[in-house]
Parts: sequence; C-alpha cells; structure tokens
Amino acid sequence: MSITERWFHGQLHELSDGECWQLLRSASIGRVAYNDHAGPVVLPVNYAVDGRSVVIRTSASGELASHLPSTVVAFEADETDDFTQSGWSVLVRGSVEKVGPAGPRDPEAQPEPWPAGERSLLLRVTPSQVSGRRLLPA
Amino acid sequence: MSITERWFHGQLHELSDGECWQLLRSASIGRVAYNDHAGPVVLPVNYAVDGRSVVIRTSASGELASHLPSTVVAFEADETDDFTQSGWSVLVRGSVEKVGPAGPRDPEAQPEPWPAGERSLLLRVTPSQVSGRRLLPA
Repeated sequence: MSITERWFHGQLHELSDGECWQLLRSASIGRVAYNDHAGPVVLPVNYAVDGRSVVIRTSASGELASHLPSTVVAFEADETDDFTQSGWSVLVRGSVEKVGPAGPRDPEAQPEPWPAGERSLLLRVTPSQVSGRRLLPA
Repeated sequence: MSITERWFHGQLHELSDGECWQLLRSASIGRVAYNDHAGPVVLPVNYAVDGRSVVIRTSASGELASHLPSTVVAFEADETDDFTQSGWSVLVRGSVEKVGPAGPRDPEAQPEPWPAGERSLLLRVTPSQVSGRRLLPA
C-alpha cells in the first residue's frame, strides 16, 4: 500500500487478522452483544486476549452470567480520536462458554475488573469470525 | 447521596433517564447491535441525539442499511478512562426506522460522518428502554 493511498481522506481499510489481534491486545474494555427475550443488548466488559480467544470477566450473578454461557455473541473493541476523526474497531463473532477451573491458557490473560465487588465469572468467546477496520485521519 | 458513599471504590451507579440523555449528547461515536442470519453483530457508528431518539448516519449501501431498517436494535455509547478505571455507558434499546426526507426534528441533530464517501442514510432509533451506569473512580 502506498503512502498516498494509505492517507486518503478519512478512508476505511479492512484490517488483517494479525492486525485485529494486535489491536485487541492493546485495549482492555470492549463490548459484548447478545440477545435476551426482547432482542439485542450491548454491555461494556473488561477483557483480555487469551491466544486466539477473548476472555471477559463479569459478575457471576449479573445480566451477562444469566444470558451468555452457551450462546452466540458479538464482541467489539474500538479506539477513536475525536480530534483527527480516526480510529479502529475489531469485531469478534463466536460462541461463548465458561472458562474452566484451570483458568485462561495464557496465565497473563487475566482481565482486570474495574468495578468493585465479586467478578468471578470468566467467559471465553471463541471466534468463528474476526474482522476489523481502521479509519485513517482525514 | 453522600460524598463518602459516592466515591466508594470503583462502584457502579445506575444513571437517571436525564443523565443518560445528557451523556449521550456529549459523545458522537456509538455502537449499534443487530442480528443477521448468524446472530448478533456490533458496529461503530456516528450519531447525534434528536429529541428523545438517536439518529445514526451510515452508507446507504452498507451492512447496516441492509439489516437495520424496521427491526429492533441496541445502541450503546460509553466513555472510559483507563487511568482512573472509571467511566459511563448508556444503552438504548428500541426499534429503528429510516429518517424521512424532512430530516431530523432538531436541525442540529446531524451526525457528522467520519469516513469519506457517501453516507446519506439516516436511521432513527426510537427507544423502548434507556439505561445507563457510571463507574466511579476507585
């Protein structure tokens, strides 16, 4: 990709698989979308990347715990800059299951919970599809 | 609410309806969740608040245009601070329809598109439910 092509005004570029995972590793807050009886819901979550999966941490008694395990979800992370009107977003679609007692495969893949209180439930999103886009500055 | 109670370590507080709309007005990038044939999807969008609805702007030929009108969606906006591990998020659930040729009711409710190219489609999310949470600094 040439410099000219790359910095075209506010253009969207599809990210490679490798870029998607690299960007996912650079953030710690994402959003998970799932369905309840009334349709889609999106909630922010703390997460970490564990190999080629996303581990999210939540309360064992909350909304996510009651709707998420053993279903399909979408997980999204992004970073945007209001000033340059640029940024990136990555979308991970897949199934979600509880992380077993052995914990994440990568011992450092421990999502740090921001809210106080019991956040003992780890859920793993195993991707069926990963895609991402970068919006370059105008 | 006393100061002591308010600044308890990393505590989550439900936001009032008025606070939700005030915070929604303070941001310009949100995320919309909808379902396609394979389940939930979440994509970032430019948006503006128009009265008690959210107007999003997108390409007339994109993914959102082909899946969104006349369905139920979830719209989410948030702002987080990695350093203080605090932030807010607002969730708007509701139905989505094309904005008619007269445009938004509030003439200033014009979502500014960041990506270049044709972004002529305005979609309105009319809420059936609005909720939000603030996570106070630890």
